[in-house]
Amino acid sequence: MPYTYEKDGAAIYRQSFATIRAEAELARFDADEEPIAVRMIHAAGMVGLERHVRFSPGFGAVARAALEGGAPILCDARMVSEGVTRPRLPADNAVICTLQDPRVPEMAREMGNTRSAAALELWRPDLEGALVAIGNAPTALFHLLNMLEDPACPRPAAIIGCPVGFVGAAESKEALWADQPVPCCIVEGRLGGSAITVAAINAIASRAE
Amino acid sequence: MPYTYEKDGAAIYRQSFATIRAEAELARFDADEEPIAVRMIHAAGMVGLERHVRFSPGFGAVARAALEGGAPILCDARMVSEGVTRPRLPADNAVICTLQDPRVPEMAREMGNTRSAAALELWRPDLEGALVAIGNAPTALFHLLNMLEDPACPRPAAIIGCPVGFVGAAESKEALWADQPVPCCIVEGRLGGSAITVAAINAIASRAE
Repeated sequence: MPYTYEKDGAAIYRQSFATIRAEAELARFDADEEPIAVRMIHAAGMVGLERHVRFSPGFGAVARAALEGGAPILCDARMVSEGVTRPRLPADNAVICTLQDPRVPEMAREMGNTRSAAALELWRPDLEGALVAIGNAPTALFHLLNMLEDPACPRPAAIIGCPVGFVGAAESKEALWADQPVPCCIVEGRLGGSAITVAAINAIASRAE
Repeated sequence: MPYTYEKDGAAIYRQSFATIRAEAELARFDADEEPIAVRMIHAAGMVGLERHVRFSPGFGAVARAALEGGAPILCDARMVSEGVTRPRLPADNAVICTLQDPRVPEMAREMGNTRSAAALELWRPDLEGALVAIGNAPTALFHLLNMLEDPACPRPAAIIGCPVGFVGAAESKEALWADQPVPCCIVEGRLGGSAITVAAINAIASRAE
């Protein structure tokens, strides 16, 4: 007997988001933040994630305005850039990941840092006004914060800081939250990752659910 | 003051895996399963994930032998296929995701199913002996199980079944676990996703940590 299951993508989204809104504690999020938090929970399959999500004031509006104005999205990993749903983007925005650039391995050796961190040096021409999305490497987020200590470094519009893991992830997100060089969103602690980061981008890109 | 942080990728991995092995409950996994579970926890940033991880007997050995024998890896989403670390693959294995094939939208309409499910119809020429990795769509896993009800359908070597979310994810993984058409690995319940799935593939591909 073949399995029967919900096969309508739109119905699956509707039921998923209804379940999340019934179960998660979303009251502290404003109207710009709530749909972002809902999608992040959806991507993680985890009610309770919302307790670790933090938005700095204005993040949602600033990030959305940046995308509507045509800002590029700068991603630290291909799993992030590949996950962005292109038809949701309001201005056919460029989605850029420089990690596979052939210059990166040598740059990483010279810098004494990871390839993920070195790849950010190639963001500089696109960084001004961009939406930055770091969903994998704590070293990338730390390096971005160090880049932004230089007042001459171009400023992104907003930063999604969601690296994941056991070494540096919690610390790099704490540092972003303490610095707040621009409006930002984080998932505190070890949790994070490409799927959650992509979900935030896709929610910012369009209010459609 | 610039932030100081661990910049050596190998040291980051070592510390991460040591933390996981100190904190997670891994005793019930055998020598083939343990490194897979550790990488899945690593990708999720979540000690405790191991309580939801299930391996059917022989899964690790069968999946590894398939890759060593040159089997392709069939992925339901680009976030999965893009995450596979190519240098870890033992036989320069093909990594295939058919979701963006231009035939898929029309196939989905004809089938009355999602694009994720329809895309699996294009796996048939590569399915025999493959390592299947479903890290996103419950509909893809359900459709695979229905395809495999036909004895004429080619058999994969092993299935990583880790779709994520609130509608069909838990149910499709329960169905895979009940059927076990071939050796399989699941994350029970809502948790799962592309990062965890990629971690399992990368662990199977190489014992290097």
